This record gives sequence, structure tokens and C-alpha cells, in this order.
Amino acid sequence: MAGNIFGKIFSLMTFGESHGEALGGIIDGCPAGILLDFDAIRNEMQRRKPGQSNIVTQRKEEDDVQFLSGIFEGKTTGTPIGFIIPNTNQKSQDYSDIKETYRPSHADYVYDKKYGTRDYRGGGRSSARETASRVVAGAIAKQVIADIKITAYVSAVGEIALNKTYQDLDFSKIESNAVRCPEIEIATMMENHIKEIKKQGDTVGGVITCVIQNVPIGLGEPVFDKLHAELGKAMLSINAVKGFELGSGFEGAKMKGSEHNDLFNEDGTTKTNLSGGIQGGISNGMDIYFKVAFKPVATLIQKQDVLTKDGEIINLQGKGRHDPCVVPRAVPIVEAMAALVMADYYLFQKNR
Amino acid sequence: MAGNIFGKIFSLMTFGESHGEALGGIIDGCPAGILLDFDAIRNEMQRRKPGQSNIVTQRKEEDDVQFLSGIFEGKTTGTPIGFIIPNTNQKSQDYSDIKETYRPSHADYVYDKKYGTRDYRGGGRSSARETASRVVAGAIAKQVIADIKITAYVSAVGEIALNKTYQDLDFSKIESNAVRCPEIEIATMMENHIKEIKKQGDTVGGVITCVIQNVPIGLGEPVFDKLHAELGKAMLSINAVKGFELGSGFEGAKMKGSEHNDLFNEDGTTKTNLSGGIQGGISNGMDIYFKVAFKPVATLIQKQDVLTKDGEIINLQGKGRHDPCVVPRAVPIVEAMAALVMADYYLFQKNR
Amino acid sequence: MAGNIFGKIFSLMTFGESHGEALGGIIDGCPAGILLDFDAIRNEMQRRKPGQSNIVTQRKEEDDVQFLSGIFEGKTTGTPIGFIIPNTNQKSQDYSDIKETYRPSHADYVYDKKYGTRDYRGGGRSSARETASRVVAGAIAKQVIADIKITAYVSAVGEIALNKTYQDLDFSKIESNAVRCPEIEIATMMENHIKEIKKQGDTVGGVITCVIQNVPIGLGEPVFDKLHAELGKAMLSINAVKGFELGSGFEGAKMKGSEHNDLFNEDGTTKTNLSGGIQGGISNGMDIYFKVAFKPVATLIQKQDVLTKDGEIINLQGKGRHDPCVVPRAVPIVEAMAALVMADYYLFQKNR
Amino acid sequence: MAGNIFGKIFSLMTFGESHGEALGGIIDGCPAGILLDFDAIRNEMQRRKPGQSNIVTQRKEEDDVQFLSGIFEGKTTGTPIGFIIPNTNQKSQDYSDIKETYRPSHADYVYDKKYGTRDYRGGGRSSARETASRVVAGAIAKQVIADIKITAYVSAVGEIALNKTYQDLDFSKIESNAVRCPEIEIATMMENHIKEIKKQGDTVGGVITCVIQNVPIGLGEPVFDKLHAELGKAMLSINAVKGFELGSGFEGAKMKGSEHNDLFNEDGTTKTNLSGGIQGGISNGMDIYFKVAFKPVATLIQKQDVLTKDGEIINLQGKGRHDPCVVPRAVPIVEAMAALVMADYYLFQKNR
Repeated sequence: MAGNIFGKIFSLMTFGESHGEALGGIIDGCPAGILLDFDAIRNEMQRRKPGQSNIVTQRKEEDDVQFLSGIFEGKTTGTPIGFIIPNTNQKSQDYSDIKETYRPSHADYVYDKKYGTRDYRGGGRSSARETASRVVAGAIAKQVIADIKITAYVSAVGEIALNKTYQDLDFSKIESNAVRCPEIEIATMMENHIKEIKKQGDTVGGVITCVIQNVPIGLGEPVFDKLHAELGKAMLSINAVKGFELGSGFEGAKMKGSEHNDLFNEDGTTKTNLSGGIQGGISNGMDIYFKVAFKPVATLIQKQDVLTKDGEIINLQGKGRHDPCVVPRAVPIVEAMAALVMADYYLFQKNR
Repeated sequence: MAGNIFGKIFSLMTFGESHGEALGGIIDGCPAGILLDFDAIRNEMQRRKPGQSNIVTQRKEEDDVQFLSGIFEGKTTGTPIGFIIPNTNQKSQDYSDIKETYRPSHADYVYDKKYGTRDYRGGGRSSARETASRVVAGAIAKQVIADIKITAYVSAVGEIALNKTYQDLDFSKIESNAVRCPEIEIATMMENHIKEIKKQGDTVGGVITCVIQNVPIGLGEPVFDKLHAELGKAMLSINAVKGFELGSGFEGAKMKGSEHNDLFNEDGTTKTNLSGGIQGGISNGMDIYFKVAFKPVATLIQKQDVLTKDGEIINLQGKGRHDPCVVPRAVPIVEAMAALVMADYYLFQKNR
Repeated sequence: MAGNIFGKIFSLMTFGESHGEALGGIIDGCPAGILLDFDAIRNEMQRRKPGQSNIVTQRKEEDDVQFLSGIFEGKTTGTPIGFIIPNTNQKSQDYSDIKETYRPSHADYVYDKKYGTRDYRGGGRSSARETASRVVAGAIAKQVIADIKITAYVSAVGEIALNKTYQDLDFSKIESNAVRCPEIEIATMMENHIKEIKKQGDTVGGVITCVIQNVPIGLGEPVFDKLHAELGKAMLSINAVKGFELGSGFEGAKMKGSEHNDLFNEDGTTKTNLSGGIQGGISNGMDIYFKVAFKPVATLIQKQDVLTKDGEIINLQGKGRHDPCVVPRAVPIVEAMAALVMADYYLFQKNR
Repeated sequence: MAGNIFGKIFSLMTFGESHGEALGGIIDGCPAGILLDFDAIRNEMQRRKPGQSNIVTQRKEEDDVQFLSGIFEGKTTGTPIGFIIPNTNQKSQDYSDIKETYRPSHADYVYDKKYGTRDYRGGGRSSARETASRVVAGAIAKQVIADIKITAYVSAVGEIALNKTYQDLDFSKIESNAVRCPEIEIATMMENHIKEIKKQGDTVGGVITCVIQNVPIGLGEPVFDKLHAELGKAMLSINAVKGFELGSGFEGAKMKGSEHNDLFNEDGTTKTNLSGGIQGGISNGMDIYFKVAFKPVATLIQKQDVLTKDGEIINLQGKGRHDPCVVPRAVPIVEAMAALVMADYYLFQKNR
């Protein structure tokens, strides 16, 4: 109920603040007998990790995951998989600044109002460091639904947008650059833009596109738990996300039915796929694709007006090591959340 | 699990197909002692009802709700509120056409694949008639959270978009026209466009904007059940919805942090509200506002290629009485789903 | 959350008070394609029905169930099955007596304290009439798990107990008498005892034994959702139930391990079955059997001290048509709840 | 869904096997601002700990709990409380015996059948060591509902039963002896009996009585989630439990209504309390009390027939350090589960 669990059949519950002892989680409902690929899990964590390139935060976080249960002789046992990620590099610095102030467009203020207290060392529970646990669980979920292929990439940084549809892209190029955009020329422009923004002590938003391929027909529940409703919720639960579009999205709202309808081929596939692989909340076997909008990171390395607990506005110089643009590191998070949703619906559908 | 329940503290479970005996639902968790305004409930149902104007479907549906339990001497008792909406006008027509064919961008095909069967008389469970039950429950939810004001309106029909932000609109005008757009001039353009589209036997998509005002600070749960994640899921669960944007949405992804951050006033309100009233998943007391994109209705009154069960493509003339544009009638549905989410989080927050 | 839903994969949500318009419920998660046996459903309802013999309440209740959705051409469609049972025989009598008083060992007092209000016409939501909905859903659940055989019978009425274990009984005799005890001689004693008690205007408790046969190995989840924990909850949720014993039960607590352990046969079955068919919360393929204790009905046709709303004790003559002993009519309810649990775990296990 | 989570508002999810790295759990929904008494938590763990006396298992387990999140400056923050209990003393012994065999009345066999695999080092997930996590969470739950007093004690060991009702006992004596029976003379008899049983390499069952005092009126939900139904489930989820009785229990089934009804006093309390503090599933403010039956531990230090994976019966000498009687150490587990249930319903009721 308090919002720290995701999924029903394949569930993830997480705990942990950015500056506590450790983060971690419990994965419940993972089928027994899966020989886990631990390198694949580590690889996903590397993609999310701070300090991986010069356009992301230079914080050092080790992000070593320790599995504590649910795995025996390398295989899942069907019992819950408990894991922790120690917070090794949280220096006991001086927090007096942020202890008494609320930063604009951060969660400091609402946490204090909601709980009457907060862990003021960093973002506490609202820190994006929490997503490390999601990436661990998502990496395992990917192995549960090994046939379903989930690929995300950066399709916009600020005003710089990739104009091709996913069908015209070479996914093997995504990891070739620090931005995780498969079109190298655009990637370079994005990278330069992020460096420029960083120099200004500013930040910039962006968009991630995610494509899910080789999806069995029939995943998703009608009415409230439509497959794309749950994908939307999953994405909107990621820090800084402000929008979600399936298939044609907001562009589709401008179209006529005669343009938008996806006509069938004889084998049940469709000639177009403006629907984005889902009809009536249920996968139709076509590729599922969607876009996720991320706002610019709220922490600036500039002077900015903040609110004090005493109700004063003071001008404060922002400091620390933060991402000038969140989307490069958010790519594996988007994939992880998509994997959690797909594993949940896939396992549920199996029993119909 | 099978997707027919929404909400945890204030829950709605629905049942019913478009052409069965009746639709209905159970509202569980409604607080005791609320003197219900039945006229307000009927009014919401009128707003969703077919045949209400010449730009919506001319089907006749009575939509009379019968409450069966949970109400005594006009007041809620705290026990579940069961209700039914009889399907009075479902003529036993000839369904042989649609029985053997899958209409493009409808759920016929995926239902057959998922369940191995379907109620082929109309849309069955995937029919938008199911939303009548949501409107009933939403109308009660509104009375549970009487201080919170929820207002939706049509902000785009096809390419015709309202260019003002909600602050510059007069909400009292929304119900003054058949489109439910508060700007009369634009409303007229929209109305004419829908009539034109209807003449062509075609359909068109649109956008609804929803504003939630007078929200207490602190509603929403961090991490997976962020308030806007649940609002997003609620909206994406409505038939034909393809996109959701909170606050700045996809435009926000183009901005810099120094432009996007909402600076505080001394009283904790903010000078701007690009965040859309939610920080870190928790309401901050500012107005919550979001946009919802609806694709064009898939049923056309034109000739169209459809797939038969035997795997043939045949050209079929669409017929029946369908909405040329869904957004005018979807306004109360958007409000209803928003009310369900807000009531659920409001009641949960009360016990913190 | 408010306690009106049971089951996760195969769920039942119910609504309705004893004297409202109707009771009913929604069954969600029923697999598609099951050709329902409506006579079997009616038969279960007949077994629960008031007025069926001279040792149960002589109230007339028609208990006609109307299915409103989820069934098409006689088969389940996989969508929710909504149903209602109209309250046809609730005479608008004078309730002034019970309106202002709290009957001992009834729920009147706690409802008023919890909700600040109650439907004082009869038991309201706490009436055993609510179990009619459970019997409908249980009858369908039985058809979902057709291979699993669930049989309940009366094993004690007051001090009169059946001394044989279930293996020595002829289940075909259960329905041969009004008490539903398969040992005719004992049944006659029980019947006479109930008649005697009835003459006194008093009531008496009893015990029901339930046996579940042909259970697949592996149903049940370790730790919190052990199969017998859920069976126990299901039974304790039935009105008037005060105790639950699996297998050896409280007698088992007196035994030594060397007496209680169930030694294996080579095929994995066990020589004894003191465990009651469940180990570590998971079915082991042996018969599951348990006992359920019912307290005597609280409504007496005698003078009794009651509490008024104003805090006075007054002596009131009980009246009406109530069961002198609840167990004969509770047999199908025990079976129904057992069927709901087994269907839920059976469908969940299928996807492992 | 997979059974490793308990509670809805105040939830506990656990993970861990007896011989893995660690056990642990996540407590979600704990209110913010509670100054935790860590000594009280440690004390509860001491009461459950092996090796605490000469009538329990002599295994050494350190059971040190490490809190990883959700607590800041000694107070709960409202965010999830993650904790681990390292498995420090699990010696890497020779498990070849139990790897290939199924012990009678253990979960070995059903785990292998259900999951196709199991962690054969000790009891794996079915080990009672899992209950250490419950005791941690229960100790915190007790602090959430500080006014409600939960007391459990041993009321029977084998045939030796305590014949007094709880009102006639001095609860301060419970911890005065190794058995945790408040009547010293009986306690000594029990203790001697357990020592005798232990000498035989055998085990014996027992009964625990639990009393919950100072309960607010109105906790519990009607119909399926009755307060005692959830208490029953909680108790039946504890390893080795075979029965549950609320108030009069199975004895109540023998009584007449005129004997069993609890007559009111003018203040709403009742003269007797055969109901056990709950009416219609809702607490009535009187003491809640119930009994829990534990079967004898299945591990014997005797020769015993076991089943091999290959389907042979072989005679094997049991070994190891196991409890001859589980009830002395189960007292804090019963209290912990009762506390989890009460905290969950208490927090839920607050928002009505």
C-alpha cells in the first residue's frame, strides 16, 4: 500500500535511502530453475552506474549487488530473492545547508509535509539511487522472459531529437556512445549539448524510446490493468518522468480513423502499427513501442532561490556531483521497468 | 489480478459487456455516513450518455443506475455499494458479420487469441460502455473528496487545439457546448470539424486536459505508486487513450533545469508550476493538471479491409451508430478516473 | 482492503445486506471456455436455502441467482461474472425494537461503533444471507477444479459427535437426511436434539468436517500464504465460526513426533495422514481434511437482556424465524469457501 | 502472490533460507516519527533464539538484526525498513544424507515436487529460522500499537495442560521459566516432560494461548477479512501449527445459545466473553484471546524410515540439534504475528 512494491505475480519490493547503510529489495514470484547470468545483471548495473562517462555524474558508487537468498547452485529456487547494494561511498559531509532548506522541484518539501521528517542527507528515499534495485530486478526479469527483447535508447536531448522511427535504426549502435543514441551523428550533437549545459551548471531534459519485440499475443488484462496502462505507470514511477506515449501517442490524437487504423495482413499481423502493439489493453504480437519524457534534473550548480524551513527565501549556490542530463543513465532503468511489467503479465498469462 | 478492480482503499470492481443483461460494479471502502447526492450522480451519467448531442453516437442507452446495497436512508453505510446499469436497448440484431471477422484496431482479434472465445455482440467487455460503471463510482468518489475540485475539458479535436493554459479559461463555459471546450470560438470550430468528419463516415482523435484543484499536500506514495503514476495508469486504462502528460510533459523534456524549476514563494507555494502539482510522486498543494491523448475511434462508416477468422481479408462496409469523436463524452470519464485515484490516495493518507 | 474480496487469481467480491434490494457479487479470474452446469449451481443454493427442512429456519428466501455477464452461449468468457440474488421476501416489518437495541453476541453494537450507523433491518451486512453469494461462486469454482472433490458433512451437533473418521463414512449418505451427517443413526439423534432445542427457543452449536480429495501435489505457497492458512482464514470468515483444525489439530499437540510423523510409501504417499494432506503449507497429494467449529446462533426465541442505544439493559422477547442450529445449512458454505481457496491456488500453481 | 508478504497497510515481506547468506525482510507502511526501542526488538529476538535454555535446540544462531533503511536519527521515517539477519553459524557440513532423501512430515518432498529443486541444506525456506524476520517486524509492530498489549504463553505441552483461564494467571511469571508457562508448578512438569522426551530422541507438541488487551472497538473488516480470520491465518502460517480457536473455540460448538451469548453491561462491555473479543469480525473492546496448536517437531534423533529420491524406503538415524518441543520458542512468534495483524487493522481503521 505504501508504494514500495511493484508487480503481482513477479513482484519487486525495494527499500533504501541514498545515504543509509544499503539499498536493496526482494524479488518474489521468480520461477524456479532459471540458471542466472550474473554477468548480464552486472552489465545492466554498469549501464546505470554513475561515473561511467564524462556526461554523467562523476559520483563514485560501487553498486555491487549481493544476493542473499532464492538462488542455489546458480539457479533460482522459486523462493524470494533478497539482495542488497551497500552504500559505500556516502561521505559524512556537512548537510547543514540542505537540512534546513527545500530545494525547488525536489521532493524535500513534500516529504517534510507528508512524514513530518526526512532523511536530509541527499535525496533520501526520493533519490534516483533507488532505481539501482529496479535495474537488478529488471535484469532478472529479462532472463525470465528471455524470448522477449526489450531495447531502449535516447531519442531526444533538449531540442535535439532523433527523427527516425525505430525500424530505421541500428540497435547495435546504442551502446557505442555515452548518450545511448543509435544514430552516431545525432549522438555527438547530444553529447556536445550536454557538455555545454554542464559547463553552465545547468541541466537539460530528454526523451527515451523503448521497443519490446517478439511479444506473445494475449498479454495484458482488459479494463483497468491494460498492458500499456501498467507500462505507463511503470515509466511514470521513474524519477523525473513527465510523459508517456504508446504508439502514435499525442500525434495519434490529431489523426483520422481512416489514417490511424492498422489494417490486418492475412496472418493476423498488421500493415501499420500506430497502435503500438496493443489493442484493448492486450498485446497483438506486433512490436510494442513507447516514448518516455524526462524533465531536466532539478539540481543546478548555480545560484538559486530556495525556501528555508522558517519560511524565508534565500539565494544558495548549488554544489555536488549531479547529472547534467538524466536520460543516458535512465535507458537501463526504462528497460528494467518494462521487463518487470512484461514478466508479470507473461507469468500471469501462462495460467490462462 | 484479472484487471477488473481499481484502487486499494477506495476500490471499484466492474463487470459487464455491452450486450449482456447489465453492467455494474461494486464500490468498496466508501466511508460511512456520506449523504449521497443522487442528482449529481445522474448528472455525471448524462454527460457520458450516448445521444446527448448531434456530434456523438445516436445510440439510445438509458444508463439508469440501480443501487442495490451499501446505502441506507440515503447515506452510505461503509459496506460495499453494489450497482447495476441494465442494458435495455441492445437489439438482437444480426451479428453474423462481426462474429466471423476481426475489425482493424479493435480488440476482437486479441480477445479471441487470449480467451479462445468472445462475446461478439458489439465490443463485449472491451466496449466503452464499460466506462458507465466508472462514471457512477467516480461521481461517488467526488462526493467523498468534496473539497477537491476536478475539472476536465476538451483541449484538442484533431488538429484544432486550444492554445490557452487552463488558468486563462472560464470553466463555467465547459458545459455550454456539445464539445465541452470552454473557449466558445474554438468549440464551434471543433464541432464543425466533427460534423464534417462524421459526414465522411470517418472519425477523429482529440485531447482532454484535466485540472485538480484544492489538493491537500502529501497525497501520493513515493517510488512505485507515485500520485501521477497512478493517475497515468487510470487515464491509460480508458479506451482509446494513447498518451499522458503531467505538467510540462513532453515540452518539459526540451527545457533546461534553470527554466523548469518551480521556485518557491515563502508560503511553500511555487511561482511557476511546470511540475504539475506533484513532486517526487507526492502532491505539493499546487494545481495538478495533465493531458490525455485519445486516438480516433476505430469504427468507421466506410468500406474497410477486415480479417476473417479463416485468415482472409475482405472489404466490409462499416455500419452502426458510433461516435465520430470520442472526447466530448470522455470528459466525465477522465474526471471519474481522476476522482477514483484522488479518493483512494486521500483516504489512505488520512491514516498517516 | 475493506474485506469484501476473497482470492487473488480466482477472486470473489460480494455486496449486499439482508434487507436491501439484492445481494450479489463479481467473480473475477474465472478461466474462459468452461461450459457451466447451472443445475449444479442451483443445487448448491438449494442446500444453503432457508426453509429446506423442519430443523432450519422457516424463512422463505427465493435465492434465485441472475447472471449478468461473463457467460456467453453457456460458457465462461474469461471476463468478470457479475450476478445478483434479489431480496424478494424481506417484509417491511416493524424494526423499532432492534433499531434501538444491541442484541448480545450479534454484530449490532460493533457496527454502530465502527461505522456510526447501520442498516438495522435484520443483520445488514453481517447477516448470514451474505453467504448465498459465496455459494454461487463456490459452485462455479468447483467446476473450475472439476477433478478435485470437496465434501463436507456435519460431524457434531452440541455434545452429539460422530466418532468415525471420514475414511469410514459413506459420503453418499450425507444428503439423505436434514442434518447432513452421513451416519444415519447419529443423524437422527442430532435431528431430534435440534428439534428439542428449537422447542426451548434455544440454539446449539456444531462442527463440520471437510475433506478435499484428488488434490494435485504442490498447491500452496510457503511462508504466509500456506494452503491451510488460507483455508483456515476462509473458514473463520464464515459467520459463527470459532475454530479450525487441520489434520490432527489440537489432538496432534498432545502427541509425540514418533507417533505423529507420517511415514512415506515408496510412491510418495504416506502410511498415515495426521498432517492432513499439507506439509510446509503445500499439498502433498494426500487427502486434505479439517474441522470447523460453529458457535450456537445468537438469536434466541426467549426473553433476553439487551442493551439499548441509551445505555440501558432491558429484557426483550426474541422473535422471528431463525435457525436453531446453523451447521446443516453451513455444509455447502464450507464447501464453497474450500472451493474458492482451491481454485485460487490451483490456477496460480498452473503458471509455475 | 507467492506468499512472502503479510499485511496490507503495515506489511512485512521476508526472504531467506536457513543456510543462505542471510535472512531478512522489508517492513512497509510503518508510520513516520516513531522513536524505536531497539532493546525491545533485541529482547524479542532473544526470546526466539536457539540455545537460550536446555529444553530448546542447542544450535548457536546469533540472530543479530541489521537495519538498513527507514530509520533516521533513531526514528522511523515512513519509508520502508529493510533489515537483514546474517546466517553466521551455518557450517558447511555434509548434506549428502538429506540431499537425496525426503524426511517424513517435513517439506522436502513437496518443495521438490513444486519447484523441481530445493536448497537441501537444512530446511531451506521452510525452516523455522524464517520466523526470526517475523519477530523483528512484530517487535516494531508492537511499538506502533503501543497501547494494545499482546501476551502469549505456553498452555500445554503434550498431555500436560494448564487448567486455568488467562484471567487467573500472573503474566509476570511467563518469562520466569524456560517453558514460558506462567504457572510455575505446571511449568516444572512441562520442563521435566520435555527433558524426558529429549532423552528419548523424540519430540512433543503443545499449545500456546495468546491474549490481546486494551483493544479499541471497531478493528476488523466484515465478511472475508474478519479480524479473527486474519489472526487465524497469521497463526496457521507459523511452522507446525495445526489448529486455532478464538474464545470458546471447539468447546463453544457444544454449547447452547443461552449459555454462549455474552450479555451486555450498561457500558457496552459484556459480562462473559465467550466470543473472545470479536463480534462479526470486529473487535468489541473486550480481551481477544485464542489458542494455537503446534504439532510435535518432525525431526527425531532416532532411526526412522525415509524416502529416497529414487523411490526407496531406507532406515536413517536422525541427527543434529533440534527442539524437542517448539512451543517455548514459539511464544514470541505468536506474539509477533498477532502484533502484525493488529497493527495492520489498527492503521487501516484510523482512516475511517
